[in-house]
Amino acid sequence: MLMVPAGEASGFSFEQWSMVYNALSFGIAAMGSATIFFWLMIHNVAKPFKPALAITGIVTFIATYHYFRIFNSWNDAFDVQYDAKLGAFSVTSTGQPFNDAYRYVDWLLTVPLLLIELILVMQLPSGEASSKMWTLGLASALMVAMGYPGEIQDDPAGRWFFWACSMVPFLYVVYELVVGLAEATARQAPSVASITSSARYLTAVSWLTYPFVYMIKGVGLEGATATAAEQVGYSIADVVAKAIFGILVWRIAHEKTLLMEEQGLLTGK
Amino acid sequence: MLMVPAGEASGFSFEQWSMVYNALSFGIAAMGSATIFFWLMIHNVAKPFKPALAITGIVTFIATYHYFRIFNSWNDAFDVQYDAKLGAFSVTSTGQPFNDAYRYVDWLLTVPLLLIELILVMQLPSGEASSKMWTLGLASALMVAMGYPGEIQDDPAGRWFFWACSMVPFLYVVYELVVGLAEATARQAPSVASITSSARYLTAVSWLTYPFVYMIKGVGLEGATATAAEQVGYSIADVVAKAIFGILVWRIAHEKTLLMEEQGLLTGK
Repeated sequence: MLMVPAGEASGFSFEQWSMVYNALSFGIAAMGSATIFFWLMIHNVAKPFKPALAITGIVTFIATYHYFRIFNSWNDAFDVQYDAKLGAFSVTSTGQPFNDAYRYVDWLLTVPLLLIELILVMQLPSGEASSKMWTLGLASALMVAMGYPGEIQDDPAGRWFFWACSMVPFLYVVYELVVGLAEATARQAPSVASITSSARYLTAVSWLTYPFVYMIKGVGLEGATATAAEQVGYSIADVVAKAIFGILVWRIAHEKTLLMEEQGLLTGK
Repeated sequence: MLMVPAGEASGFSFEQWSMVYNALSFGIAAMGSATIFFWLMIHNVAKPFKPALAITGIVTFIATYHYFRIFNSWNDAFDVQYDAKLGAFSVTSTGQPFNDAYRYVDWLLTVPLLLIELILVMQLPSGEASSKMWTLGLASALMVAMGYPGEIQDDPAGRWFFWACSMVPFLYVVYELVVGLAEATARQAPSVASITSSARYLTAVSWLTYPFVYMIKGVGLEGATATAAEQVGYSIADVVAKAIFGILVWRIAHEKTLLMEEQGLLTGK
């Protein structure tokens, strides 16, 4: 968290400040456009997949909202002005806080929904689907909730403690994605199974970046450099885990719709 | 980049400043209205072309967002006031940076999507389509990413170096558009083949303007004149490469829908 009185140097170079600024704007554009794409495609997939596509768009819509908030909070926390003495742009504090909590509020809502959309589009038998949604949804919410107390402190020991707590449900979710859903994936049609595998592994790999980004501040990197790296890292991981993951979910729905059409299962839309 | 302390003359004449201002506003109007047109037309083309039209609109939507941002950044960087002593409008700096990076963030997202929409509407066999999307998508993203480090420096040698790096994937993409997709174009129905050719050549020609605009600052033109020429040049090239190109993509989808109707391939919508 930025704790500098108004008018004093923020510690951020103009390049660091700009990199975060552009990463957050990239987040808005990527999440916003993905949202519209998913919602436009709702009418182009068969009925069983419409809820998954609606939720896919809800996830990126919530993210768009939060990226707007984070972007505005980032702008409100700094004054950027050309300084003739320095011959460069100076980044001073306005004394206002940069709000870290938006990301956690976002994840608390979107991470369980992401897992639910994956299960919906896989069309597991209904008892299995419902129990997976509950266990994965709750585990992932717990993961986010336990990460937050660590995020808001600068003490590395505290950060590591909550990191470790958060890793327990995290590892359970990743295990379920990689191992638990393997059998259900194998039951899918070949053209669908390969995209489903991609979606599971993309989730596992993109999620694995979060614990590393989280620990940037725990391994000695401090202040402005750590905050800039963290903001850019989270932004890229978010776009991969939500927008690109969503495109894979759409492709699963699209392929399954084509298979249903071939099998003459679709009469109307 | 504009590096002038607040309150001092920006170096831009009122005419230069206005020309950029109006070019950026033209960008908002052209991209925004194209977006709405493409999305309205989704329901008027056959099912296989709906994703291409959705993506066409996504491209211009992302561009609309960025043109709003660039326009606002342009306004925030200058104070324009009538100066009675000069008998003219003076354009002074507010000390705030004019953000060059928006265009690159935009291109990083939209250029791969533009190529994907062209391939989608051409309906190549699925293996060929998928491999072309990956190679063209990645090559074009690389092209944009390598252009940026040159754009943010004023040293002509550095600009030429990154220009040359960026030209490698650029030439590959243009070659694929002109030569690689020629055979696939020839396989299309005659009415469709001619529009597809137009779309490919329009892309190749409009893209060729970018390396020239990029090098305005590398051939000795400096400061305000170079920046104004660059902003107007990029704006016109963007509208051609995104909005006008999109109209050709829509016409391909439209013609193909008519052909499917004639052949009795469309029962419902």
